[in-house]
Amino acid sequence: MIKVAIVGGTGYTGVELIRLLSQHPNAEIVLLTSRSEAGKRVDSIFPSLRGVSDLVFSDLDENQLAKCDVVFFATPHGVAMQHARFLVENNTKVIDLAADFRLQSLADFEAWYGMQHNCIDLLEKSAYGLPEINRQAIAQADIIGNPGCYPTTAILGLKPLIELQNSRGQALIEPWIVIDAKSGVSGAGRQAKLNLNFSETSDNFSAYGVAGHRHLPEIEQGIHRLLAQNSHNIQYHDIRFVPHLVPMIRGMFTTIHIRLTQAGQAIDLQQLYENSYQNEYFIDVLAKGQYPDTRSVRASNRLRIAVQTLANSAMATILVVQDNLVKGASGQAVQNMNILFGLPENTGLTLAPVVP
Amino acid sequence: MIKVAIVGGTGYTGVELIRLLSQHPNAEIVLLTSRSEAGKRVDSIFPSLRGVSDLVFSDLDENQLAKCDVVFFATPHGVAMQHARFLVENNTKVIDLAADFRLQSLADFEAWYGMQHNCIDLLEKSAYGLPEINRQAIAQADIIGNPGCYPTTAILGLKPLIELQNSRGQALIEPWIVIDAKSGVSGAGRQAKLNLNFSETSDNFSAYGVAGHRHLPEIEQGIHRLLAQNSHNIQYHDIRFVPHLVPMIRGMFTTIHIRLTQAGQAIDLQQLYENSYQNEYFIDVLAKGQYPDTRSVRASNRLRIAVQTLANSAMATILVVQDNLVKGASGQAVQNMNILFGLPENTGLTLAPVVP
Amino acid sequence: MIKVAIVGGTGYTGVELIRLLSQHPNAEIVLLTSRSEAGKRVDSIFPSLRGVSDLVFSDLDENQLAKCDVVFFATPHGVAMQHARFLVENNTKVIDLAADFRLQSLADFEAWYGMQHNCIDLLEKSAYGLPEINRQAIAQADIIGNPGCYPTTAILGLKPLIELQNSRGQALIEPWIVIDAKSGVSGAGRQAKLNLNFSETSDNFSAYGVAGHRHLPEIEQGIHRLLAQNSHNIQYHDIRFVPHLVPMIRGMFTTIHIRLTQAGQAIDLQQLYENSYQNEYFIDVLAKGQYPDTRSVRASNRLRIAVQTLANSAMATILVVQDNLVKGASGQAVQNMNILFGLPENTGLTLAPVVP
Amino acid sequence: MIKVAIVGGTGYTGVELIRLLSQHPNAEIVLLTSRSEAGKRVDSIFPSLRGVSDLVFSDLDENQLAKCDVVFFATPHGVAMQHARFLVENNTKVIDLAADFRLQSLADFEAWYGMQHNCIDLLEKSAYGLPEINRQAIAQADIIGNPGCYPTTAILGLKPLIELQNSRGQALIEPWIVIDAKSGVSGAGRQAKLNLNFSETSDNFSAYGVAGHRHLPEIEQGIHRLLAQNSHNIQYHDIRFVPHLVPMIRGMFTTIHIRLTQAGQAIDLQQLYENSYQNEYFIDVLAKGQYPDTRSVRASNRLRIAVQTLANSAMATILVVQDNLVKGASGQAVQNMNILFGLPENTGLTLAPVVP
Repeated sequence: MIKVAIVGGTGYTGVELIRLLSQHPNAEIVLLTSRSEAGKRVDSIFPSLRGVSDLVFSDLDENQLAKCDVVFFATPHGVAMQHARFLVENNTKVIDLAADFRLQSLADFEAWYGMQHNCIDLLEKSAYGLPEINRQAIAQADIIGNPGCYPTTAILGLKPLIELQNSRGQALIEPWIVIDAKSGVSGAGRQAKLNLNFSETSDNFSAYGVAGHRHLPEIEQGIHRLLAQNSHNIQYHDIRFVPHLVPMIRGMFTTIHIRLTQAGQAIDLQQLYENSYQNEYFIDVLAKGQYPDTRSVRASNRLRIAVQTLANSAMATILVVQDNLVKGASGQAVQNMNILFGLPENTGLTLAPVVP
Repeated sequence: MIKVAIVGGTGYTGVELIRLLSQHPNAEIVLLTSRSEAGKRVDSIFPSLRGVSDLVFSDLDENQLAKCDVVFFATPHGVAMQHARFLVENNTKVIDLAADFRLQSLADFEAWYGMQHNCIDLLEKSAYGLPEINRQAIAQADIIGNPGCYPTTAILGLKPLIELQNSRGQALIEPWIVIDAKSGVSGAGRQAKLNLNFSETSDNFSAYGVAGHRHLPEIEQGIHRLLAQNSHNIQYHDIRFVPHLVPMIRGMFTTIHIRLTQAGQAIDLQQLYENSYQNEYFIDVLAKGQYPDTRSVRASNRLRIAVQTLANSAMATILVVQDNLVKGASGQAVQNMNILFGLPENTGLTLAPVVP
Repeated sequence: MIKVAIVGGTGYTGVELIRLLSQHPNAEIVLLTSRSEAGKRVDSIFPSLRGVSDLVFSDLDENQLAKCDVVFFATPHGVAMQHARFLVENNTKVIDLAADFRLQSLADFEAWYGMQHNCIDLLEKSAYGLPEINRQAIAQADIIGNPGCYPTTAILGLKPLIELQNSRGQALIEPWIVIDAKSGVSGAGRQAKLNLNFSETSDNFSAYGVAGHRHLPEIEQGIHRLLAQNSHNIQYHDIRFVPHLVPMIRGMFTTIHIRLTQAGQAIDLQQLYENSYQNEYFIDVLAKGQYPDTRSVRASNRLRIAVQTLANSAMATILVVQDNLVKGASGQAVQNMNILFGLPENTGLTLAPVVP
Repeated sequence: MIKVAIVGGTGYTGVELIRLLSQHPNAEIVLLTSRSEAGKRVDSIFPSLRGVSDLVFSDLDENQLAKCDVVFFATPHGVAMQHARFLVENNTKVIDLAADFRLQSLADFEAWYGMQHNCIDLLEKSAYGLPEINRQAIAQADIIGNPGCYPTTAILGLKPLIELQNSRGQALIEPWIVIDAKSGVSGAGRQAKLNLNFSETSDNFSAYGVAGHRHLPEIEQGIHRLLAQNSHNIQYHDIRFVPHLVPMIRGMFTTIHIRLTQAGQAIDLQQLYENSYQNEYFIDVLAKGQYPDTRSVRASNRLRIAVQTLANSAMATILVVQDNLVKGASGQAVQNMNILFGLPENTGLTLAPVVP
């Protein structure tokens, strides 16, 4: 059994990790920490866990963490990097669900997260935890930067096309991308905020981060560094990312708009996407003419994609859905754990979506 | 492996059975029937099942059904009783999620369901599938009448008190019971109805069945026949059941109001309930001062109960929550299957609730 | 034009007062105060008011308030009583939407609101602002205690029956009442609270105040003091009030359960209620067999009632709906203002409900 | 008083017309027709109208309609054109809320609505009822084609920029437009459809019309014919319109993505939009850095716009919100009626949005 610790188990990604890991055949949560709730049973905070978990929150103690095989940080940005060196030195793997190990660009990290990075050498050796594009690096890393929810959809939604463009050295899309994304409210976390109050959020729809959002540099990095090795024709400022808030709890729907060049229009995108993902357990390319909805992945680690081209237009659309708390956060973190410990990637992650 | 057939897999209880059974270690769905969808893959109707199930709907064929170990009827009322005799004669167990085998009173059945019963002898030998009160009978029966969702909460919410009253032969509550129940919209089924349209149902709250609801005789039967063997002081017409529709998908919240006699006020209800259910895996009596919410059981087979007495009043309140599609329908049906086949009752039913 | 001030215009009752009064033909808001938002335009806090109101929040200044004809306190409990004496002495009417002038029992006020009352003489001369039972007293008062939302539904739902019982001096119902009430989330106010977060509240249903709620003594007072003058058979501890939280923004649904005595069963309740309310513009008794839903009063000052008796049972049910922010708060406050200033009661309050 | 008839008053645009017109100082509904509900009181279908309207549905009788000053058709596509000639010949104005008089291109009409137009001469003389771009034509027309909900947001969201581009004869944006639109469920009408069932729609987000939607030719017509007189650089197939379904009742949020040319980047879009709409009562351009949400226009005829350019990118975003049933349908229809009868445009349309 993999001995697991979760730091910061009082947020939504924390409770989702507990839900998933409590059903994992090869992992056992042995330590759960929370500054604010130390001493309390986890099921007193989350009554849904009554009968599921007997764990009690404890204070964060690095020595205790270091006795575990892996530590998940379901904490605010900046916490994991305080403890990563000690853990790695003690042969404990680190999976950070926050942003400390997502961006290789220090300038971007500091600009968007408002803090200095304190273990740059570890950052360089860490792996970006998007298995479908970075599986090998993950398997060999000590530290995993678990991706942001939006970047997961954007990068996986663009991967087949960008990779092909890159491999061909030929522009398949015009030099801009529109990523119009929509997220359920749980993406904003388990917080007491007026703008998240039911009466403010329900029966309402809004945009946010319209002037800029910290997931943009991560999307950019995914496209430029991971997929295209800087060789293709899309520049940073050509990617427009606008997130919106949907009155639903879980779910993320990302609509990607592109315009195909003549070379791009000659590609059979449907075939390209199906081929590209045919061996990926968690990635489901829908049949032509089918479109995804977010509930079709509710509470599961699946991500579904549809591709739409048009007979009389160069415009094309890629639709991507995931559960923001699973494939967009905790499920992907467990998938990364499976890779780290040599398990089949879908171990403990085969739960069927909850519909209705 | 238990070979399972599901008749009528296109409704919400059907898809929930598929979700649960696809994760059950000792059962395998081998046959799925639907008149309207025969020939189609189940995942074309429910895209959430893509990658979960490869099943194809077929027409109902009794001979095929009879090759299975158990047949779940997730059909409208009146279907299971058409096929029960043939199946039982072929040693196939029947679990009906509709009402055909719930009511032992033919008069009640005919009055509330508007049809004649066509296999009264089988009805008499069938078992009412509420394991926590009827486990032994279920284990020996060929046919299980899976309870209605409201009766499950009402009967289990009242069980400890009514049983005690019955065993003492003394009135512990005044001779009336108010059952004010609230259900999510999935309880109304997967139907194209104007009154279930999102724009009619969302941001709205209503009552229905105010002048009478078919779950009342079932509650009555549970209290009189199963719990109290007709000896206690509550008459049929003393039970008032009013259901309401809540703008949520899943979940049932039943508020039971009673008034304690002097003898009743001397009872420690909290202790009574905790003791009564201490060995029941699926029944969770909350600690004093804690109250349940429906999401704490979302997508799980748990049912949680809180009991509230008052210092200065004889009134008392019992609060019960369940997921109407799980403990209120398909999960309970699987629990019954487990009993029928000698498995631990919680086999395949240990999934943690989905929160948030 | 009636010159109106609103103290504390940043909550939901405040913005609802602004919405209603901005459309009132005989009133003009001239002053709007908020400690936290002084200096800001109201439409910067509530963009819905862009083009509707140019008001700017100011600090609370008693002298400025006293220049107005009426001051609405849309504030936390305990604020209005700090300013009431000064205002009354300056011939300014006071309508308090909080609880300072609701309860005539000081013991109850102190027990439930945790503070001393500081103007008991004014409290005694104030009027409980439920026009349908207290119209004359309101017309002559300087201070109006605007009722709580739940008490409005409970008292008006019981009025015809309790008054008849009282006038006859004969028990028509057994000596207990169950008030099972359900409210939309806006009733909890415009607050940054975790338990009101969309992800906690949506797709969920819960009870609260199960062990006791501060609206109970107000309901009790309404029944005993206003309706029955202490002569009938219902004691304080016989009324059981349990509120629940519904995942909707606006709306309140109160289900009142009673058990009729033989004398009570002889009454035609439908007729009684229709007659009792036939001249009340805002009270709508539905036809027999019709049941209300909350959206049928959304954003309007109507309150709708249905009465259900049963052929074979002494149990009876009264269903009451209102918009908790209108008839349950700000609309009723405007109705009281109309009475205070001799206007037709429905002036500015004839807006049609918003459906869907 | 303007004598008004509404044909087809049983849908959401019908009941919304009744809500608005019942509060209109210069109009009176004298006739309400419905084939399916003839003989029934409107408030028996819509209990929200109890106390608001005493109207009774009647069968459609052209002679009765012709006695009115104006007839609103809140009917399926194809109904208004059956009656328009008779009404116009009898000096009765026609406002069609369906599509019969929206598209001047017969080819587009037939292709997208699957029917022949039967009064082409009237179509040519009719006016497209978007007052902010077509006020003069509306004032002189006998027949108004009330715009679709999506086109209203798209055309008004693009108007200042397209008009400027057109007047300059210079490309300000690159030759494509992405219109990523999101609508509440009421836009799908008052229908009994499975995919609109609460359990299917709630806590879910999806796209529809991904391969093509009938509002696209109307948007195209608005841009090419009304705004740009065919002279600018955007071709039909360069406009990509993808609508999505939001789990909310009312509200439409349209996110328009464009890429500015160098000439376009030199424009101060914020200033342009503010100037363009400064005299429009219903169009509200938000201050720089403010973004709209749909609830800020709930139940009102306002449409709010925000414009976002970026320091380091040529991409720009225009955000538009409206209530799909008001400015997107019935409110706009009343606005058109006001124009037809020489009333101030906002007569009866000054109701404040309902928030929360």
